[in-house]
Amino acid sequence: MKKIVTFGEIMLKLSPESFARLTQAHSLKVEYSGAEANVAVSLSQLGMETVFVSKVPDNDMGRSAINFVRQFGVNTAYVCQGGERIGIYFTEKGAAQRASKVIYDRKHSAIATAEADDFDWEAIFRDAQWFHFTGITPALSDNLAEICLQACKTAKAKGIHVSCDLNYRSKLWTKEKARTVMSRLAPYVDICIANEADMNDVFDFSSGKEQLNYSSIDEKSYQKVAKMAAEKLGFKKVAITLRESISASDNNWSAMLYDGTDFYQSKQYAIHIVDRIGSGDSFAAGLIYGFLQNFDNQKSLDFAVAASCLKHSIEGDYNLVTAAEVENLLNNNTFGRIQR
Amino acid sequence: MKKIVTFGEIMLKLSPESFARLTQAHSLKVEYSGAEANVAVSLSQLGMETVFVSKVPDNDMGRSAINFVRQFGVNTAYVCQGGERIGIYFTEKGAAQRASKVIYDRKHSAIATAEADDFDWEAIFRDAQWFHFTGITPALSDNLAEICLQACKTAKAKGIHVSCDLNYRSKLWTKEKARTVMSRLAPYVDICIANEADMNDVFDFSSGKEQLNYSSIDEKSYQKVAKMAAEKLGFKKVAITLRESISASDNNWSAMLYDGTDFYQSKQYAIHIVDRIGSGDSFAAGLIYGFLQNFDNQKSLDFAVAASCLKHSIEGDYNLVTAAEVENLLNNNTFGRIQR
Amino acid sequence: MKKIVTFGEIMLKLSPESFARLTQAHSLKVEYSGAEANVAVSLSQLGMETVFVSKVPDNDMGRSAINFVRQFGVNTAYVCQGGERIGIYFTEKGAAQRASKVIYDRKHSAIATAEADDFDWEAIFRDAQWFHFTGITPALSDNLAEICLQACKTAKAKGIHVSCDLNYRSKLWTKEKARTVMSRLAPYVDICIANEADMNDVFDFSSGKEQLNYSSIDEKSYQKVAKMAAEKLGFKKVAITLRESISASDNNWSAMLYDGTDFYQSKQYAIHIVDRIGSGDSFAAGLIYGFLQNFDNQKSLDFAVAASCLKHSIEGDYNLVTAAEVENLLNNNTFGRIQR
Amino acid sequence: MKKIVTFGEIMLKLSPESFARLTQAHSLKVEYSGAEANVAVSLSQLGMETVFVSKVPDNDMGRSAINFVRQFGVNTAYVCQGGERIGIYFTEKGAAQRASKVIYDRKHSAIATAEADDFDWEAIFRDAQWFHFTGITPALSDNLAEICLQACKTAKAKGIHVSCDLNYRSKLWTKEKARTVMSRLAPYVDICIANEADMNDVFDFSSGKEQLNYSSIDEKSYQKVAKMAAEKLGFKKVAITLRESISASDNNWSAMLYDGTDFYQSKQYAIHIVDRIGSGDSFAAGLIYGFLQNFDNQKSLDFAVAASCLKHSIEGDYNLVTAAEVENLLNNNTFGRIQR
Amino acid sequence: MKKIVTFGEIMLKLSPESFARLTQAHSLKVEYSGAEANVAVSLSQLGMETVFVSKVPDNDMGRSAINFVRQFGVNTAYVCQGGERIGIYFTEKGAAQRASKVIYDRKHSAIATAEADDFDWEAIFRDAQWFHFTGITPALSDNLAEICLQACKTAKAKGIHVSCDLNYRSKLWTKEKARTVMSRLAPYVDICIANEADMNDVFDFSSGKEQLNYSSIDEKSYQKVAKMAAEKLGFKKVAITLRESISASDNNWSAMLYDGTDFYQSKQYAIHIVDRIGSGDSFAAGLIYGFLQNFDNQKSLDFAVAASCLKHSIEGDYNLVTAAEVENLLNNNTFGRIQR
Amino acid sequence: MKKIVTFGEIMLKLSPESFARLTQAHSLKVEYSGAEANVAVSLSQLGMETVFVSKVPDNDMGRSAINFVRQFGVNTAYVCQGGERIGIYFTEKGAAQRASKVIYDRKHSAIATAEADDFDWEAIFRDAQWFHFTGITPALSDNLAEICLQACKTAKAKGIHVSCDLNYRSKLWTKEKARTVMSRLAPYVDICIANEADMNDVFDFSSGKEQLNYSSIDEKSYQKVAKMAAEKLGFKKVAITLRESISASDNNWSAMLYDGTDFYQSKQYAIHIVDRIGSGDSFAAGLIYGFLQNFDNQKSLDFAVAASCLKHSIEGDYNLVTAAEVENLLNNNTFGRIQR
Repeated sequence: MKKIVTFGEIMLKLSPESFARLTQAHSLKVEYSGAEANVAVSLSQLGMETVFVSKVPDNDMGRSAINFVRQFGVNTAYVCQGGERIGIYFTEKGAAQRASKVIYDRKHSAIATAEADDFDWEAIFRDAQWFHFTGITPALSDNLAEICLQACKTAKAKGIHVSCDLNYRSKLWTKEKARTVMSRLAPYVDICIANEADMNDVFDFSSGKEQLNYSSIDEKSYQKVAKMAAEKLGFKKVAITLRESISASDNNWSAMLYDGTDFYQSKQYAIHIVDRIGSGDSFAAGLIYGFLQNFDNQKSLDFAVAASCLKHSIEGDYNLVTAAEVENLLNNNTFGRIQR
Repeated sequence: MKKIVTFGEIMLKLSPESFARLTQAHSLKVEYSGAEANVAVSLSQLGMETVFVSKVPDNDMGRSAINFVRQFGVNTAYVCQGGERIGIYFTEKGAAQRASKVIYDRKHSAIATAEADDFDWEAIFRDAQWFHFTGITPALSDNLAEICLQACKTAKAKGIHVSCDLNYRSKLWTKEKARTVMSRLAPYVDICIANEADMNDVFDFSSGKEQLNYSSIDEKSYQKVAKMAAEKLGFKKVAITLRESISASDNNWSAMLYDGTDFYQSKQYAIHIVDRIGSGDSFAAGLIYGFLQNFDNQKSLDFAVAASCLKHSIEGDYNLVTAAEVENLLNNNTFGRIQR
Repeated sequence: MKKIVTFGEIMLKLSPESFARLTQAHSLKVEYSGAEANVAVSLSQLGMETVFVSKVPDNDMGRSAINFVRQFGVNTAYVCQGGERIGIYFTEKGAAQRASKVIYDRKHSAIATAEADDFDWEAIFRDAQWFHFTGITPALSDNLAEICLQACKTAKAKGIHVSCDLNYRSKLWTKEKARTVMSRLAPYVDICIANEADMNDVFDFSSGKEQLNYSSIDEKSYQKVAKMAAEKLGFKKVAITLRESISASDNNWSAMLYDGTDFYQSKQYAIHIVDRIGSGDSFAAGLIYGFLQNFDNQKSLDFAVAASCLKHSIEGDYNLVTAAEVENLLNNNTFGRIQR
Repeated sequence: MKKIVTFGEIMLKLSPESFARLTQAHSLKVEYSGAEANVAVSLSQLGMETVFVSKVPDNDMGRSAINFVRQFGVNTAYVCQGGERIGIYFTEKGAAQRASKVIYDRKHSAIATAEADDFDWEAIFRDAQWFHFTGITPALSDNLAEICLQACKTAKAKGIHVSCDLNYRSKLWTKEKARTVMSRLAPYVDICIANEADMNDVFDFSSGKEQLNYSSIDEKSYQKVAKMAAEKLGFKKVAITLRESISASDNNWSAMLYDGTDFYQSKQYAIHIVDRIGSGDSFAAGLIYGFLQNFDNQKSLDFAVAASCLKHSIEGDYNLVTAAEVENLLNNNTFGRIQR
Repeated sequence: MKKIVTFGEIMLKLSPESFARLTQAHSLKVEYSGAEANVAVSLSQLGMETVFVSKVPDNDMGRSAINFVRQFGVNTAYVCQGGERIGIYFTEKGAAQRASKVIYDRKHSAIATAEADDFDWEAIFRDAQWFHFTGITPALSDNLAEICLQACKTAKAKGIHVSCDLNYRSKLWTKEKARTVMSRLAPYVDICIANEADMNDVFDFSSGKEQLNYSSIDEKSYQKVAKMAAEKLGFKKVAITLRESISASDNNWSAMLYDGTDFYQSKQYAIHIVDRIGSGDSFAAGLIYGFLQNFDNQKSLDFAVAASCLKHSIEGDYNLVTAAEVENLLNNNTFGRIQR
Repeated sequence: MKKIVTFGEIMLKLSPESFARLTQAHSLKVEYSGAEANVAVSLSQLGMETVFVSKVPDNDMGRSAINFVRQFGVNTAYVCQGGERIGIYFTEKGAAQRASKVIYDRKHSAIATAEADDFDWEAIFRDAQWFHFTGITPALSDNLAEICLQACKTAKAKGIHVSCDLNYRSKLWTKEKARTVMSRLAPYVDICIANEADMNDVFDFSSGKEQLNYSSIDEKSYQKVAKMAAEKLGFKKVAITLRESISASDNNWSAMLYDGTDFYQSKQYAIHIVDRIGSGDSFAAGLIYGFLQNFDNQKSLDFAVAASCLKHSIEGDYNLVTAAEVENLLNNNTFGRIQR
């Protein structure tokens, strides 16, 4: 089995049932998630061996976070325990013209206050083929930015592939800070993943339009962005997800990939959404899976888009689908008919 | 802060979870609502000072009704307690080709049997700018019709704006009775709000079509109706909501306004519905808000339609959105993307 | 009242809330259903007298199955008790590009191991006008195939109409076994009901296309199939439901009927799905209702399609709609507006 | 099978989960119950054939009431449909020093406004051995008092046993009115059932204590009451349940029986309560069962007390226990150990 | 109406259903509470006018906290909005030998970081008769200790009664720190309330036993403690709640009061517990109510103990009982019988 | 860390909420458990390294079983996948005089039909100190009895401690069959664990009483049984749990241990029960923990009884308590007070 390591925060996610607003909630659903944990679980469901590295408080909420990820087969032996609290995020699901909403309460978390010696990268990377993190991890604290760099360097030295999803979060850092830190990490990253806005936010690589038009994506303009990123920052591959938001209930979803030479464009799926949080992470997981399975670039991209298309139909941040289910969609075998 | 007074019934609303039918329900969700309470809560969420006037029984259900409205910041000091029972309505949510259904059990309610001296309109209207009621209130009993008249007269005497949503309910009174009573109240009403059918049902003002075609609205024909109402009944402004029902799951929603001189037409929203009950009330609230904020007619109408568009995405009869969220939709800033 | 007898398995149905996957379930909704029980309940809701014949274990789960069907007014006096266990099926609801999924755990069930003398067909058919079963019943065991034959013969001898929904289940038997058994039963069947694939699976009557295209139905080609079935197997009428699966969330739904002479085609409904399991059964019930009400062929077909269209909006396998609600849809009276 | 007929109101029962108060409820559990419906269901679970006679409105709530009773095997063919509304009762479960609480909203109900010709007693009593009603039924309206009398006379004429549980409800009528009406019915009643307070409230037969002491029952004094009732009103048997209320969580429960000659006293059970509503009804059902099984007086009493002891452990108003389970408790076989 | 002001933190309380542990929770019940908010709500339910003063973040969780308190009629006009986050506490209910458990995540909360000018004590205390806070408020930050002092001084200057519940929390401050701060506040406090351990923890006033024996309380020894507190710190009255913990499910509950001259001892209640969190707060509320109603010392104490006895039967931190219900228990009228 | 291996079935456990009966359930809680899985999870929570060996079907229910155990840190690498179905058990919680009830549907399960080469005992036992199984495993099939024997022999050969909990289940095998099979396994078992009835059921070792009196345990008589077992079957240690069932709600709980020389008796706990299923397994886990921690016999027994006492307060079959929580109870530190 291929072994993938991901590194980042895992938060307590609290959300009302169905489409209730936070101000209407009498109870909140309990889940534990974070971009890198989501990628680890997705890959685990696809059949990969995965290790999730993080830090959680030594209390019931921290232990529950470990339990939650571990149930799906992710190795949590390198999640260390300590610190003050677990980061929390409250979220309500949007519908129709009302957008989904996220309220973060993640400051002072165990992972944000972690120290370099909480993580033994030599041990963590033993027998690993891949290391994945997102721009959220170095954004959490200066310490974590440093620890990320250290992890990247260790990975590189061991010949491990490194992928990074930019995942820009304006609540965590400014664009300027993001650019400075991410530029230091970029040289160690083989594959850069981003959504429509990230490249512009983090690296100031614009798609040429003055303002992003989220309801109609111009695919060509993103080729320019991808190429720029590859050339200026040395990424071997750049993948960009392309979402057309018709409403909070209906989106069109596709992605593109640039390998330094050619551009690859996926099919676009018209999706009636159940839950879209975590779709970017499921795309990253699909792409890593494709590359580790030695799929060619087009197949890897198609697999990642089909996998993340399915994520939109699944509640929670984890993409709980098997590789067979993704292949089924790719082969267009089901047409949404009941699988008996 | 602007202060708005609304007057009407608040009922116990009992509804099954999700799309279950009433005959499938093992438990029923508890809410308390009514057209005028809905308007008060909507306005309160938009930042206005609101007073809801009603009567509920002096028991746990009556007290819970007060608590339910009060939690959203509505002043309930003038809800008096007494009488026999609280009105109840059972409702199930429709979907696809199956319509939503409402079963009323509202006879003999505390408010229907209220007496004139339950309400001290002089005190209630102190510092108020606006009085709103709907055609449901005078329909509940002859006493209430009289009390409404008294309230309207007091409001007028104090220079308070009066708005009325026709809200014709055939289970409560005949068209003939409605016409007689509403015609007595009309002279005190500045702004008349109605949906496609109300004008015809209550005042026999027809849009000229033999039968209403609910799946495709002819906007022009409603201009005729609005004008007729303004001229014959002396309303300063007439607003009509226009709903195209594709199915119980998908509607197109817009509205028009006539100010005695000009016609204003809003944008039409294609809405994938979460819960449409209360959308008319949220429109009324939006319109009142707009006028009290001194928006011009077009902006007031647009705000009201955007606010009520959002209501369709929210569970329950109350439109729990802020003015900022409505403005966001008006400015088309979100495209349904996650608000982090 | 017209009396209809149906015969088949009733299973414990366990399903997660909303769109959760089985691997995410912390609790499972409890229902009891099966193709023939579904038809009985549907007919009972339409106002018919119904008798459901089956066998369940003599324990709490068996008793609960009886209670569940009985609550909707179905006569369960001929459900005998004994055997080892109740069949179970686990199901999760699909959405968007993810198909619904069913996991059967129905082997060794009370009904599958039933014996001929568990059922007294003479008594059961007293005063009955109609007998309905589906291809699932004879597929459960050789014993049951024999019992079905016996029931069919008794019904025929008493001049009772017999209908059969092919309902091919590949997990229960091979196509070859199905063909052999169903061919022995066919001579006793007056009306054969099938979906797009059944005719081909069971009788090898192909619509002429090499592969079924589920997202776009060619109605004409199914006329050929229906005619072939009527001619070769002697059915008096053949009805075929036609589903176009856009996704697990959106389907187009219609049906056709052949009476040995003419072809009848229904309207097609575009449906945003709440729950599609049981829609085929609700079609069968609608058709039986139409024929027993002496509707003509076109009206019977239209009623059956409208009834089963409504089923897609209802949670659970039973079509809990009244005849009046179906007529309303046929007459296009509601447009999905609230029924107050 | 023995056939028992019961006659009375069935109400929609709405109650919060667990120990929540009504003012804390966000949803309410839906059940349908009433003293005579409870007795019918209890007897049905014990293996008897039962018929429940009532009137419910012709709407979804009325139909759900029928479904709810019918699921447990009670014959509901003589529940007629019509009238304005279903009676409702709201209830919250007490605990420790806080008493359970019931809020009735039962006025204007279908049954309270029923007419004599809604019930065909000749048909209803065909093949019946027993007729049971409680003091609640004649208390609902003068019409119902008259209908009760008519039912009693018809039963008597047909040699059917008649039992009546006094069930005095001060919210429904005064003691004086109760005495007048019940005294007219008494001559037709063979077996009179009461709790500690009923005899005093209805017939002014006092246990000799100035005030009831509910936390410690003096069994002897109730013998006097029972004898008085038998002598003055001509009951053949009188049964009185004896409850010692330590708190809302813990009660001691027993009963006595007088057959005109001898006094019988049951064992007393110390009960940690799950739900005590309906325990009196389950006692009546147990007693009727005992007599119909031809148990002797002591065994009948013991069975009734054991059955109603078990009711305290069961949620809802129905005593869902089998005769075997009651016998097990009588034989003291289980000691509360797991039954695998 | 008498007006009482309370001042302190309101936290988001998250707890699993029933007796589930936090590590088993798939969802968490949402409530908002805090010692001083609990007292305000209790007093509001008893019929008093109450004002709760606090600070919450300007987000959905902060607004929900206001809504939650406000629904019960508490005036929240002086809860200011701002700061970083709302304090959170996670709690699971104990049973039998397993203790209840609380995990605090309250650092960096809006109230802990509040500033002196967030509160206008002159305006807040207008028309007030009573000011209540607990030892938790000054423990949250040095700023808050200072603000408390300021509030106390303003209250004193206005002739407002001041009560303080010691409520020692070892997670918030050391005993030494507590002693220093509380000793500065004590001179402004008229009535000091404490539980068995507080007096020792905060002021080092020992009951003379080397170690507290929580399963059997020696009432006499607490008289010594109360007297010491009154004499050394100048409290006019000292009340101490006395809890005997048999297990997490069963407690004995009583209290004592010292008025500088005499000792008053309440009845002891044996309580089978539903939820004991907030019982101390409900005692404080009961005592304040008694004094404001001008009950004598014994009656005030008895009322407070009966009120807090009832709290143990109620879910959540608020004591949702009316004065009439408390009086009923005092008069021993109910014996836990159903209140119809 | 000490490593313990357990081997047995894991079933899908389906149970209604709270005290509802199975015939009242609209949904069922989903858990996965089995005697040996319960022991593994308990030991994992106490801080031990654990391996659970079993076989589950290769479907969503099988995978969910693995996930459920794995979340608590148990190594599931040796749970093989295949076979037809997962065993199921339905259970309802008893209360007061009503016993808990279990309905098994475990025939034809994956584990019951497992083959010898599904398990590689050499690999499984690598680095293990302890092997535990119960009498249920060999009872499931002859194959499993053989596989158990093989496992025992391998364990013995590797110097691994072997413990066996007799766990007699009359639904699985006769006493005679049990005696034959268990007598073959006994020579490999070091520590035999049993409840009051097992020794008699399996080995015919009677406590001398003609009939077991479950409501009052005579400890002395069990010493005789323990000694007999040690002498005749060669167990090094024999532990017997002693339960006095006052009702389904209240039990007294203790245990005894015999080490071939001396008898040890634990404290007895009076327990108000939340959920008693799994308490025997939690005792076994506590005992194994004690021995592996090198506690002396008395301390090991006391620890096991305290641990299993706490289990009675926890919902579900797993004893989710830490070693520190058990020690706290042993040291009597909490008295059921809130742990803040």
